[in-house]
Amino acid sequence: MITLYHARYTRSLRVRWLLEELGLDYELKRLNFQAGEHKAPEYLAIHPLGRLPALADGDVRMFESGAIIQYLLDKYGEGRLHPLPATPAAASYLQWFHFGEATHQPYLSVMAQHLAILPEEERLPQVAGKARENALACMGLLDAHLSEHEYVAGDQFTAADIMVVYPLVLSQLFGLLPSEGHPHLMRYYERIEARPAFQTAVAD
Amino acid sequence: MITLYHARYTRSLRVRWLLEELGLDYELKRLNFQAGEHKAPEYLAIHPLGRLPALADGDVRMFESGAIIQYLLDKYGEGRLHPLPATPAAASYLQWFHFGEATHQPYLSVMAQHLAILPEEERLPQVAGKARENALACMGLLDAHLSEHEYVAGDQFTAADIMVVYPLVLSQLFGLLPSEGHPHLMRYYERIEARPAFQTAVAD
Repeated sequence: MITLYHARYTRSLRVRWLLEELGLDYELKRLNFQAGEHKAPEYLAIHPLGRLPALADGDVRMFESGAIIQYLLDKYGEGRLHPLPATPAAASYLQWFHFGEATHQPYLSVMAQHLAILPEEERLPQVAGKARENALACMGLLDAHLSEHEYVAGDQFTAADIMVVYPLVLSQLFGLLPSEGHPHLMRYYERIEARPAFQTAVAD
Repeated sequence: MITLYHARYTRSLRVRWLLEELGLDYELKRLNFQAGEHKAPEYLAIHPLGRLPALADGDVRMFESGAIIQYLLDKYGEGRLHPLPATPAAASYLQWFHFGEATHQPYLSVMAQHLAILPEEERLPQVAGKARENALACMGLLDAHLSEHEYVAGDQFTAADIMVVYPLVLSQLFGLLPSEGHPHLMRYYERIEARPAFQTAVAD
């Protein structure tokens, strides 16, 4: 049985979304993020830094959303949601897969800290503002790319979209989306929002 | 021909290190980071956000160090430096591969900004200090893991080590390493420093 440790609006939504796209059975263990359950001893025994998601699959224990997604695709994907390795299509897939977490997401994480998570007296508007500028630059890059492609890795929905969309979900929470200045990105986001698996993953 | 856009102490050292480990021929295009060549129009045509690394391999153009490493392993690795997919060993490999960039590296990036890159009047000691605390928590997690393993994915050196070590190189620059409180991590780092491919990658 696959068990996913989950809290709304954390990176666990990526894994839940993939599990839904692949139609796999899984158990959801919900953590109350606001109540700090991710920093309670029970969860720190599963992820010592108290981050989400974490996954159990038989004897396998994992954290890191990108790693879990690659692992699940390799084990249960049967070739779905990613191109063949070592092709030009794979180069684009991998680039955007990693872009979603390594380049784009850190700016949203900083915004989350300085707009919502830190105690009010520790929040720094100039730090949130600089992160917002950088997040907008990432949105500009995505908008230009999506002016020529339906999905980030080409004409088909792939797991790279799952990686890329998480910072966009947070961008919506923080008022960066919708954005008239990013029409291709907006239409892309509407295509994503139409997917039932995405709707389930962000619902709660 | 493989072309790597490179500057010392940027994430391009990961790709250079992998190319050296695999014994592949490549051309190094050096950018002067201090002189801002990564923000010059010539380079922005290659990576619109002016980040390093970028790679050209025939018609393929890519950025994102983690993506480039996966692409090069799939295309030229012949099975070297990673375990078979969908095995428990692969779960550990993938987890640490992603940990190096998604969890650990953002704290070093914040430290770099607020200790070295931003204009002095924009540097915030409390932001650097908080990032330092989080970086030390990551070092603690690695130290505990490496008390039981020679390399992050087990007994063999893999590309996950290449991903994990980059924030450790920056940790050394910023005085977090060497650290008497992290003996297993220190011995690991010494094993890494003994590798000729690593020595070439960090030299210049």
